[in-house]
Amino acid sequence: MDYSFKLDFKVRDYECDIQGVVNNGVYQNYLEHARHEFLLVSGIDFAELVKQGVNLVVTRAELDYKYPLHSGEAFWVGLNLQQLSRIKFAFLQDIYRLSDDKLIVSARIMGVALNERGRPFIYAPVVGLCQQ
Amino acid sequence: MDYSFKLDFKVRDYECDIQGVVNNGVYQNYLEHARHEFLLVSGIDFAELVKQGVNLVVTRAELDYKYPLHSGEAFWVGLNLQQLSRIKFAFLQDIYRLSDDKLIVSARIMGVALNERGRPFIYAPVVGLCQQ
Amino acid sequence: MDYSFKLDFKVRDYECDIQGVVNNGVYQNYLEHARHEFLLVSGIDFAELVKQGVNLVVTRAELDYKYPLHSGEAFWVGLNLQQLSRIKFAFLQDIYRLSDDKLIVSARIMGVALNERGRPFIYAPVVGLCQQ
Amino acid sequence: MDYSFKLDFKVRDYECDIQGVVNNGVYQNYLEHARHEFLLVSGIDFAELVKQGVNLVVTRAELDYKYPLHSGEAFWVGLNLQQLSRIKFAFLQDIYRLSDDKLIVSARIMGVALNERGRPFIYAPVVGLCQQ
Repeated sequence: MDYSFKLDFKVRDYECDIQGVVNNGVYQNYLEHARHEFLLVSGIDFAELVKQGVNLVVTRAELDYKYPLHSGEAFWVGLNLQQLSRIKFAFLQDIYRLSDDKLIVSARIMGVALNERGRPFIYAPVVGLCQQ
Repeated sequence: MDYSFKLDFKVRDYECDIQGVVNNGVYQNYLEHARHEFLLVSGIDFAELVKQGVNLVVTRAELDYKYPLHSGEAFWVGLNLQQLSRIKFAFLQDIYRLSDDKLIVSARIMGVALNERGRPFIYAPVVGLCQQ
Repeated sequence: MDYSFKLDFKVRDYECDIQGVVNNGVYQNYLEHARHEFLLVSGIDFAELVKQGVNLVVTRAELDYKYPLHSGEAFWVGLNLQQLSRIKFAFLQDIYRLSDDKLIVSARIMGVALNERGRPFIYAPVVGLCQQ
Repeated sequence: MDYSFKLDFKVRDYECDIQGVVNNGVYQNYLEHARHEFLLVSGIDFAELVKQGVNLVVTRAELDYKYPLHSGEAFWVGLNLQQLSRIKFAFLQDIYRLSDDKLIVSARIMGVALNERGRPFIYAPVVGLCQQ
């Protein structure tokens, strides 16, 4: 599959739980970091937006856990951005083990932009990214 | 809605991010803790199972984020367990703000039990719980 | 030992690492939550202060790890607040396993209050708490 | 200062709290990851050791917080290993902002190796590392 953005990671031991694998919740951290890095290289600074009163928020997350990651394993996150409606967008994000490109997690993260009053609005820079 | 298990929580400040609300990934932690506490009072000790080579694993997670939780807010997680197939089960889990029972997150967490060789199998205690 | 504030907790499985015990970094989370709850019942709302531009920050942490906490164990944090200088204060915090009051972690967390320009200043409400 | 090992990192937004800076507890995660990576390149695999019943554990942590890290900032951890006694060792670890080498955190993390019965013992590979 082709991705418009890829980011490399490595499992850190504190991210693993008593089953000896990366804890389910941690994958959402990886996915968030990949999204924010993608936005940043695309000219959208998540933390700056927060200061300006614009909040990009997740409205729904779907994650398929295919295979676990273990201590020390390198992996990468691939990402595509898709427009769902005038105000809704979705990040299609897959996590692959680096050594053999085995699929680890396949996720679809939906979101909207909220203005200073907490109302969804058309945030042009994200719309522009969707159309690339 | 009726739940077969409820658990009370309170937001901790370290769980909040730069948007001033509980970070998306943290809700999976809350949901996991509620599932493990439910299993424990039902006679299934997650950590003991791991030592015996039985791993209860999440195969898919769907989370609808309805409204954010803020610093200091009390909330509760309601849970129902449902059998999806001979080996698959699903936890229907909702998070509500305590003060007014406002719905915060609605989630469906699917899973299976894996035996010592990592193969899905019919883990009778969970099947029994589904049928209650 | 006498403590001016105590808070009950229970270990959550996602807080445990591949050694099967609570990860070292997690104890700082427990200690922070206990401090913020203590401040809150004393009339100081950490999150509100942040909005007002006042930041209570940690300048030094010393933690002695005596014995590990395991999955499912209940524990409590005891806390005393001490004035170190006109602007510096210290939280003496101990973590005990609930079942037998075994000492788990003994910590000393030092801090100051920073004003809107990021300069340490005498924050009267904390000084008042130290003198109680 | 000279370090026997250095590791590059970048702040991830989920590591920042409502003060808009990296949360105090997260620095222990960074430090742990740097230690484990150092051990790994030195031939000591922390996760493998756990499986063999050998646990490297932290007995005391001292952290001086000099200056906060913010969203998106790159930083590096420098590390030296020191022998304290026949069974005790210490990691001297400093965190620097990458852009200007500003000191962020200065830490001293003490530890021992525990054998299968949980008793401290002389773990030769770490002793060897201390003497290099």
